[in-house]
Amino acid sequence: MLYTSESMEKTVDMFASLPTIGRKTAQRLTFFLLRQDESYIDKFSESLQELKSNVKFCSNCYNYTETDPCPICASKKRNTSIICVVEEPNDVNAIEKTGEYFSQYHVLHGSLNPLDGIGPGDLKIAELIQRLDGVEEIILALNPSVEGEVTMQYLVKMIRPLDIKITRIARGLPIGSDLEFADEATISRAIEGRIEI
Amino acid sequence: MLYTSESMEKTVDMFASLPTIGRKTAQRLTFFLLRQDESYIDKFSESLQELKSNVKFCSNCYNYTETDPCPICASKKRNTSIICVVEEPNDVNAIEKTGEYFSQYHVLHGSLNPLDGIGPGDLKIAELIQRLDGVEEIILALNPSVEGEVTMQYLVKMIRPLDIKITRIARGLPIGSDLEFADEATISRAIEGRIEI
Repeated sequence: MLYTSESMEKTVDMFASLPTIGRKTAQRLTFFLLRQDESYIDKFSESLQELKSNVKFCSNCYNYTETDPCPICASKKRNTSIICVVEEPNDVNAIEKTGEYFSQYHVLHGSLNPLDGIGPGDLKIAELIQRLDGVEEIILALNPSVEGEVTMQYLVKMIRPLDIKITRIARGLPIGSDLEFADEATISRAIEGRIEI
Repeated sequence: MLYTSESMEKTVDMFASLPTIGRKTAQRLTFFLLRQDESYIDKFSESLQELKSNVKFCSNCYNYTETDPCPICASKKRNTSIICVVEEPNDVNAIEKTGEYFSQYHVLHGSLNPLDGIGPGDLKIAELIQRLDGVEEIILALNPSVEGEVTMQYLVKMIRPLDIKITRIARGLPIGSDLEFADEATISRAIEGRIEI
């Protein structure tokens, strides 16, 4: 038998069901947990329970939050006339980490993907349009993928008539990368988006 | 702010406290959990709680188990005159996976390490000596490390007077590896342990 305990088997299965975690790592994590004291396991399992019961969506920007509106939407220090539109909640974290953006967000929760049957009604697009009163700029920070492009074109079509400035984040060579190893699409976008110095 | 929710921060911290999981993966796992339904989270947190409450040590071989003695020690199909001594419970799994060993185990729970202050009293060595009645062979399957060697020498010194056959698992080139890339120590052990064909 591989495991002398069903509980161990179950825990390995749970860890292995998480993304990026294979069975070998799942096993290693389970053995690690077995070596910890009870309070550690309790803290772990409590944090999972709290995660699910405390975290909901902000009814304004649809980011994860424990309070509604979320701390970003509620903040008086943030410029409410600019909204940065992203696909997923973790994109908000990625932008917040730069420490250089001080306005609002809107989380679409996905991108348009006709092949997978994901249409505008499946994303928080109507919710975005509803909150554009007084907004001066929409920054589209969608992924540089086919789905991101399609979603961007759809949003531009919807927002254009409202006379709001629409921008998109730049595509080009990532900092620290090497021109030699960049793919053709990235290089041609970088040339297309060149700026005068 | 990086996280708009304290519960998310806590879950990310918990995942990041596990071995081999960095903050970026911890964040990804947390966002994955948020997208799952309640029953998934419940199952996850239950499996952790069960792990801690159900899993204990077998009082015979000191492997993890839910029943005492463990299923391996209790099995009537296993040869009780051979004991394979390993350092950690996951070493048992590694050997069980081969499907070619049908005798008993004994888990030491570590190896001798004078520098870290780990002496014979910290390992399940006395417990091994106590169960040697009727045993004909002890297979030492410790790690090929300095600590494994030291532990092996100590065990040999302890068991030798009892007139029991003592063997050690072979050290040499791993299957599928390349002689060219093997280190000197491995190659010299492989030559030392050569067998006639």
